[in-house]
Amino acid sequence: MNNIQSYIKEHKTRFINELIELLKMPSISADSAYKNDVLKTADAVKISLEKAGCDSVEICKTNGYPIVYGEKIIDKNLPTILVYGHYDVQPPDPLNLWNSPPFEPVIKKTDTHPEGAIFARGACDDKGQMYMHVKAMEFMTSTNQLPCNVKFMIEGEEEVGSSNLAIFVKNNQEKLKNDVILISDTGMIANDVPSITTGLRGLSYVEVEVTGPNRDLHSGLYGGAVANPINILAKMIASLHDENNHITIPGFYDKVEELSAKERAEMAKAPFSLENYKKALNIEAVYGETDYTTNERNSIRPTLDVNGIWGGYTGEGAKTVIASKAYAKISMRLVPHQDWEEITQLFKIHFESIAPKGVTLKVTPHHGGQGYVTPIDSIGYQAASKAYQNTFGKTPIPQRSGGSIPIVSLFEQELKSKTILMGFGLDSDAIHSPNEHFGVFNYLKGIETIPMFYKYFTELSK
Amino acid sequence: MNNIQSYIKEHKTRFINELIELLKMPSISADSAYKNDVLKTADAVKISLEKAGCDSVEICKTNGYPIVYGEKIIDKNLPTILVYGHYDVQPPDPLNLWNSPPFEPVIKKTDTHPEGAIFARGACDDKGQMYMHVKAMEFMTSTNQLPCNVKFMIEGEEEVGSSNLAIFVKNNQEKLKNDVILISDTGMIANDVPSITTGLRGLSYVEVEVTGPNRDLHSGLYGGAVANPINILAKMIASLHDENNHITIPGFYDKVEELSAKERAEMAKAPFSLENYKKALNIEAVYGETDYTTNERNSIRPTLDVNGIWGGYTGEGAKTVIASKAYAKISMRLVPHQDWEEITQLFKIHFESIAPKGVTLKVTPHHGGQGYVTPIDSIGYQAASKAYQNTFGKTPIPQRSGGSIPIVSLFEQELKSKTILMGFGLDSDAIHSPNEHFGVFNYLKGIETIPMFYKYFTELSK
Repeated sequence: MNNIQSYIKEHKTRFINELIELLKMPSISADSAYKNDVLKTADAVKISLEKAGCDSVEICKTNGYPIVYGEKIIDKNLPTILVYGHYDVQPPDPLNLWNSPPFEPVIKKTDTHPEGAIFARGACDDKGQMYMHVKAMEFMTSTNQLPCNVKFMIEGEEEVGSSNLAIFVKNNQEKLKNDVILISDTGMIANDVPSITTGLRGLSYVEVEVTGPNRDLHSGLYGGAVANPINILAKMIASLHDENNHITIPGFYDKVEELSAKERAEMAKAPFSLENYKKALNIEAVYGETDYTTNERNSIRPTLDVNGIWGGYTGEGAKTVIASKAYAKISMRLVPHQDWEEITQLFKIHFESIAPKGVTLKVTPHHGGQGYVTPIDSIGYQAASKAYQNTFGKTPIPQRSGGSIPIVSLFEQELKSKTILMGFGLDSDAIHSPNEHFGVFNYLKGIETIPMFYKYFTELSK
Repeated sequence: MNNIQSYIKEHKTRFINELIELLKMPSISADSAYKNDVLKTADAVKISLEKAGCDSVEICKTNGYPIVYGEKIIDKNLPTILVYGHYDVQPPDPLNLWNSPPFEPVIKKTDTHPEGAIFARGACDDKGQMYMHVKAMEFMTSTNQLPCNVKFMIEGEEEVGSSNLAIFVKNNQEKLKNDVILISDTGMIANDVPSITTGLRGLSYVEVEVTGPNRDLHSGLYGGAVANPINILAKMIASLHDENNHITIPGFYDKVEELSAKERAEMAKAPFSLENYKKALNIEAVYGETDYTTNERNSIRPTLDVNGIWGGYTGEGAKTVIASKAYAKISMRLVPHQDWEEITQLFKIHFESIAPKGVTLKVTPHHGGQGYVTPIDSIGYQAASKAYQNTFGKTPIPQRSGGSIPIVSLFEQELKSKTILMGFGLDSDAIHSPNEHFGVFNYLKGIETIPMFYKYFTELSK
C-alpha cells in the first residue's frame, strides 16, 4: 500500500476527533434506559461507513438492537473480507472510580501510552478497534487501493450475548458470504510485542436467586432459626471450588482440552513478568488453579467467577435483618470443546442439588457462547502475520486469549469461514473497568496494519 | 385503677390518630438524609409528654440525635419508675415489598389482628409501644391516679447502637435515679398468651470489606488468575459455620451459658407450633444449630448472620467483571456472659486470619451491646405479672427473647436498677421488615396494662 503513513499523518487529528464523537454516545446495551443512545450510535456508524466508501449501507432491524451492514464489491472474482465489530459498550459503573466521566472522552499520557491514550467507555472495546477498520477502509477507497471485496457487519448487542446477531447470520448466509472474517476486539501483548489471538474462551453467564423466608426478618427474633439466604448463597458459591481451586461441578472438566507439555512450553515463551503483573494490580499474590501458571489459568483453563452479588441491607449504617432473597451473577469461561449450553445445564443441575431445605433456588441463564481456536497455518493467519511484520517490524506471537467473543464459533459454523483476531488493545487498557482507554499509537497502528492484511490476504489467495 | 377501660373507650380514636401522626415522620437514624425528620420527631415526643402531664420536659442534646427527657415527681418517698423508649426507626427498604408506603400509616384487619393493625415503619418498634406509655401517663395524670414518680427517657439512636445514650446515662445518674426501669420494645407470644421477656441477646455488628485487584477487571482476561473478592468473601463467610451450624470463630462459645435440662424443659412448655412457624414464613424446613430447638436457636444460643452483602455488577443484564471490592454487613447475636466487645475482637482476628494472600481485609465494628437476664422473683417482675393477670386474665409466661436492647445491661450497671420488659408486639408484626404493623388490640391493651404495673409496683414497694 502506498503512502499509508503519510495519509495517517495528514488525517491523524480528524481520525481521533471522529472517534471521540462516537465515544460520547452512551450505547450501553445492557441497560434499557439507554435505548435511544444505542440506536443513535447505530445511525452514526451507518454514516461513517458511507463516508468510508461503502456502496450500500443499511440498518438491519432485529428483535433487539439493529445490525449495521455495509459492503463494497469491486470484483466477484476477488476474495471477500467480512469485518465484524460492535458499537455497544459495557455499563460504566462503578462511576465513582472513573477519573473522568466515561462518556466525555479525554486524551492523557500514561507510562504505557507515552503518546497519549483516549479515556472513555468503549475506547478500546470496541468502538476504537471497530473504527480502525472504518478509517482503513476510507484510506483504501480514497486512494483507490482497495484490493478485494469488503463487507462490514457491526452489531449492537455484543456485550449482552449477540443473540439477535446469531439469528441474522443464520438467515443471511448468502449476503454474508466471505473468504475470511476479520475482527479487532482482542488485545496484544505489548506495543513492542505484537501478537495475534489464536484462541478464545467460551462463556456461560447465569443469574441465581436464593429465596428463604417469604419476607425480610428481624435477625434477633429469627437469627439462627431459619436459613439465611445470604449465608446459604455464600456457602453454595464457596463450594463451587475445591481447595485446589478446581471447579466442583460434576462433568465440568470432561471435555476440557489438555494441552501437551510441548504446547505449554511454547506458551511459556511469551514475555511475561509476574512481578509487573502483581504490581499493576497492586496484589501481594496471584490466586488460581493449582499446577497452572497465570497465563495458563486465564487462557487454556476454564474458570468460574462471581461477577456480582447482592442481598439484604446495603445502605449506610446497620440494619439487623435477615433478607428474604439473595442474588448473584456468575460467569464461567470455557475452553474449546466445552459446550456452553451443556455447561450451563450442568451448573443449573448441580447448583440446585446443593441448595439445602429451607430455601428455594432459581437459576436463570443469561447468555453464552463457544470457545474458538484459529489454525496458524491458514492463509488468513499468514496474511495477518505478514501485515504485522510490515508495520511493527516483528513477527507477531500467536496467543490464546482468556476473553470470549461467543459469535466467532457461530461464524465458522454458519458461514464456513475462519476468523482472524487482529487486536490492538492491551490488557492494561481496562476494558469493562473504570477508566477504559485506547492508546493513540495502537489506534493509528491498527489503521496502518489493516490495509496490509487486505493486501497480503488478496495476494496469498491467488 | 378506676375506669381505665372506659377512658380508653372514650379516647380510643384520638389515641390511634395521635400515633398515626407520629408514624408519618420518617425518623430513620441510620440514614443521615433523614436528619431533620428525626429531629422533628424528637420535638413531637416532647410536646406529647408535656400534654401527658410531665412537669419538666427537655430535649437533651447529645453528639448525635437528642434524648427527650420528662418527669413528674409527686413525692420523694414514693418509688420512681424510669420509662425508656426510642423514637427512631429502622430503614424501610426494600420499599417495593411494602403493600402501602412505610410512612403513610393505614389500618387493616389481618388473621392475627381481627380488630385491625396499624401498618407503618415504627408502628411496633418502637413508636407504638413507646406511645402506649405516654397515653397511660395521660390517663393517670388526668384522672389523678398517678401512684408514684415517673421519669421518661426517649432516645433517637436505638436502631444505630445507642452510643450517645450510654454517655448520657453515665453523666446523669442522679437525674435518672429510679427504682425500676420499664421498657416496651419486645414482644409477647400471642394476644391470648401474654408473656414477659426475661432475657435479651447481646449484639455485635460489623462491616467487612475485601479488596482484591486495585480496579475492576475483565473476567475473561483475568478470570481464574487473580483472587476474586466476591468468591473470597463467600468462602470466608461460608467458613464461619461448620456442618452442624456451629460458629467456627475460636473462643466464640467460651463464655456461653449452657442451660440445664430442667431450664430447657421449662422453655419447651411455651406454646409453639413448628408447622405454623414454617407456614407463616413459607419455608419447607427450619435451619440452624444441631441439637437445639427452634425456640432455643433464637433465644438461648448465639448466632451469626449476614445482614447485607454487595459487590460487582448488580444492575440489569450481564457484566463480565471481576470486582475490585466486595462487602458484607455481619451481625452476631450473643447470650448472657458473652462480652460483645470481646466477641467483636475475636471475629476481627479470626476473619483477618482466614483471608488468603491476594486480598486485603478491612473489618469495621458498627456497634454492639451485652445480653441481659431479669430475675422473675423481683418486685418489678411480680408487679408486671399481676398487671397482666388483671388485664389479660392470665398469668404471663416468662420468655427469653432473641432480640437485643443493648442499653439494658448498661442501665443495670450505671443506674443499679433492674429493667422490666413489658412488650405487647407479636413476632409476626414484621418489625425491621416491610409491612411492619402493630395491632390496635395490642396498642390499647398496653395502655390498659401499664397503669396496673404502676399500681402494683407502688403497692409491692411499701
